[in-house]
Amino acid sequence: METHIILFEIAAILLLARLLAEIASRLRIPPIFGELCAGILLGPTVLGWITPHDTLKLLAEIGIILLLFEVGLETDIERLARAGHHAVIVALGGFILPFVIGYAVCHYLFNMSVLLSLFIGGTLTATSIGFTVRILADLGRHQSREGQIVLGAAVIDDLLGIFLLAILYEFAVSGNVSLYNSGKIILFVTVFFMMAPIIAKLLLPLIQHFHRQRHIPGLIPIVLVSLVMIFAALAHTIGAPHILGGFAAGIALSRRFFLPFGVSLHSDPDFTHHVQNQMRPVIQIFTPIFFVMVGLSLDLRHVDWSSAFIWVFSLTLTVAAILGKLLGPWLVRETIPTRIAIGMAMVPRGEVGLIFAELGRTTEIFTPAVYAGMIIVITYTTLAAPLWIKLFYARYGHLLPGNNAPPSSG
Amino acid sequence: METHIILFEIAAILLLARLLAEIASRLRIPPIFGELCAGILLGPTVLGWITPHDTLKLLAEIGIILLLFEVGLETDIERLARAGHHAVIVALGGFILPFVIGYAVCHYLFNMSVLLSLFIGGTLTATSIGFTVRILADLGRHQSREGQIVLGAAVIDDLLGIFLLAILYEFAVSGNVSLYNSGKIILFVTVFFMMAPIIAKLLLPLIQHFHRQRHIPGLIPIVLVSLVMIFAALAHTIGAPHILGGFAAGIALSRRFFLPFGVSLHSDPDFTHHVQNQMRPVIQIFTPIFFVMVGLSLDLRHVDWSSAFIWVFSLTLTVAAILGKLLGPWLVRETIPTRIAIGMAMVPRGEVGLIFAELGRTTEIFTPAVYAGMIIVITYTTLAAPLWIKLFYARYGHLLPGNNAPPSSG
Repeated sequence: METHIILFEIAAILLLARLLAEIASRLRIPPIFGELCAGILLGPTVLGWITPHDTLKLLAEIGIILLLFEVGLETDIERLARAGHHAVIVALGGFILPFVIGYAVCHYLFNMSVLLSLFIGGTLTATSIGFTVRILADLGRHQSREGQIVLGAAVIDDLLGIFLLAILYEFAVSGNVSLYNSGKIILFVTVFFMMAPIIAKLLLPLIQHFHRQRHIPGLIPIVLVSLVMIFAALAHTIGAPHILGGFAAGIALSRRFFLPFGVSLHSDPDFTHHVQNQMRPVIQIFTPIFFVMVGLSLDLRHVDWSSAFIWVFSLTLTVAAILGKLLGPWLVRETIPTRIAIGMAMVPRGEVGLIFAELGRTTEIFTPAVYAGMIIVITYTTLAAPLWIKLFYARYGHLLPGNNAPPSSG
Repeated sequence: METHIILFEIAAILLLARLLAEIASRLRIPPIFGELCAGILLGPTVLGWITPHDTLKLLAEIGIILLLFEVGLETDIERLARAGHHAVIVALGGFILPFVIGYAVCHYLFNMSVLLSLFIGGTLTATSIGFTVRILADLGRHQSREGQIVLGAAVIDDLLGIFLLAILYEFAVSGNVSLYNSGKIILFVTVFFMMAPIIAKLLLPLIQHFHRQRHIPGLIPIVLVSLVMIFAALAHTIGAPHILGGFAAGIALSRRFFLPFGVSLHSDPDFTHHVQNQMRPVIQIFTPIFFVMVGLSLDLRHVDWSSAFIWVFSLTLTVAAILGKLLGPWLVRETIPTRIAIGMAMVPRGEVGLIFAELGRTTEIFTPAVYAGMIIVITYTTLAAPLWIKLFYARYGHLLPGNNAPPSSG
């Protein structure tokens, strides 16, 4: 593909995303809704101007990695740890329930095969950490109690999703599952998440030292982007999603992260602020590309709207998908509004659902009708969740525990 | 190619480029030399870790476009215009002389065919605007009298190079040249360069208005990157190099650009400063990728170092390449040190020379030996020019007319 075409595509993506996000914001709709619509508009569904290709996918991937880096940077690790066991329960609940409900509905109601039902259940387990985090950040709620539980649960869900995907794929290809492989991945990921922030934190004084000693400008954006890319690539290498590498790097550089055993490092208090200022324009350029890309990948032309099966199937599964996520938080002791807010924030399937659906399609486990139905489920949960959450907060936000941080600005 | 591999590559490029640039700077060598060496090291010539591919090429292209945008932003259009007719003469001299000398040497000394000699002469005409501009900026001389002449001449040279490339290519393929096509391109490019800065300048109040009215942060980097991408893509569409679109956008947003006929627009004096602050981290991330990429593309494995022909040929042509550029400035009335400085700054062939050489290789007009010889010429002029220029300024810089702006920092 020629360079100037890609340059036009990047400009179209950035400008339309920004225009629709700004309009959405004025209509009191979450900006992310505008960015997703920009993708659906530019993509095969409506205008067909842009077809996702490898270079755009890479830019989108960098965008979501950098967003998770920023989320990590703003995360209070102590508060996240305090939300920890609730996050684990919410994650497990929001993972198992959609899986079981989805499986049961498909196998018993629609008489589908075990493998197909398992795959559909798997697709419903997904939580899009990117959407979840952006929706709460747009509302200024990412630092709140429910925000921390959602963040923790989304991270765990993302890991569980990767394991399930690996297991289902192995099962689909070879007909059985090796516990050895799964165990190895779980071990690697655990070690990575224990070590990565500590290593990054130990590198920090070095970076600060070079920043003070530098002869030529621009050290911070270059070194930090590199660090984030390396962590993301490492995360992938050991079997975890890229974005969790970005998150680990952000956590380590956050103002509120301390090494275990009380080891304290001399850390310039202005440094995190400086890092945020230097990284913000870079993050602002790349992030919208990711959300537009999800819209570009939702090809609604695949849907045969005249098929009664697709309507019934997608409607049933959408209910299952939403119910499964809404029920999870009732397993923990939180106030009722907090439980509802957490459940709603876990609904959007986004790109993670698309990855499952894509695997189902390419392995031919999904028939075209099932694939179309799943695309509707993913589109609806992703598009509608921001709207419902915004409505919920407008109506019942005052019932939630405080710490109502203002939306980030810059 | 898998995402995590590309992420590793990007990190390796950024970190090694920064490390070698910093070391170079401490050794009082221009940082750009370090970045180029990083490319040669990582590339097929030494380690072979990274082979240039489309995605990296795109990132590199964005890097050089953004660099030229920044150069435009810092350009004083009045001063550039004052240097104008000298720049035209220097460009023509530095274009025609290497072409004629290169042609004569190949045709009469080495008994090569007319077409081959023409192509080699064409390769020698190249001036790498990116290298030229970076070398002077690293020395803090890009705003000086000789800096403005070099900038103007490099822009014109780049346009002339594109025309020549188009003509040679047509000649190589069809055996004759259509004056109609060349005329059309020249007309388009002239109109583009008259209109582009004016259109961008007219858009500026609109951007400023939206910047003040925005609901969500990050308007400046998004809109400006988009604008630069569109201008670059448009420049390419009408037949000019991408980078000149970036340059035109930068010129228009520069503090010192006024519309023709004295039309003045209400322009916030802090706005350009704000634009520079927001764009700097983005530019700092992308620009090194370009210079490393040139190093990656210089594959010195192609060279059969035991061949006497290659040594004699490349040595002769290197002398011709340097002489041709050094003689050009003697056609204008400037002081002798200014003439030498201008001539030296025009020497690096960089990526423009590589484009010619690549065309010669793929059309099979260049034999492997000739191609290897040209790669040596390009490598030498590109690697050595920063060193010689730095030496010259250290020794004779005080003889040049004032306006010694300090190196940009941030």
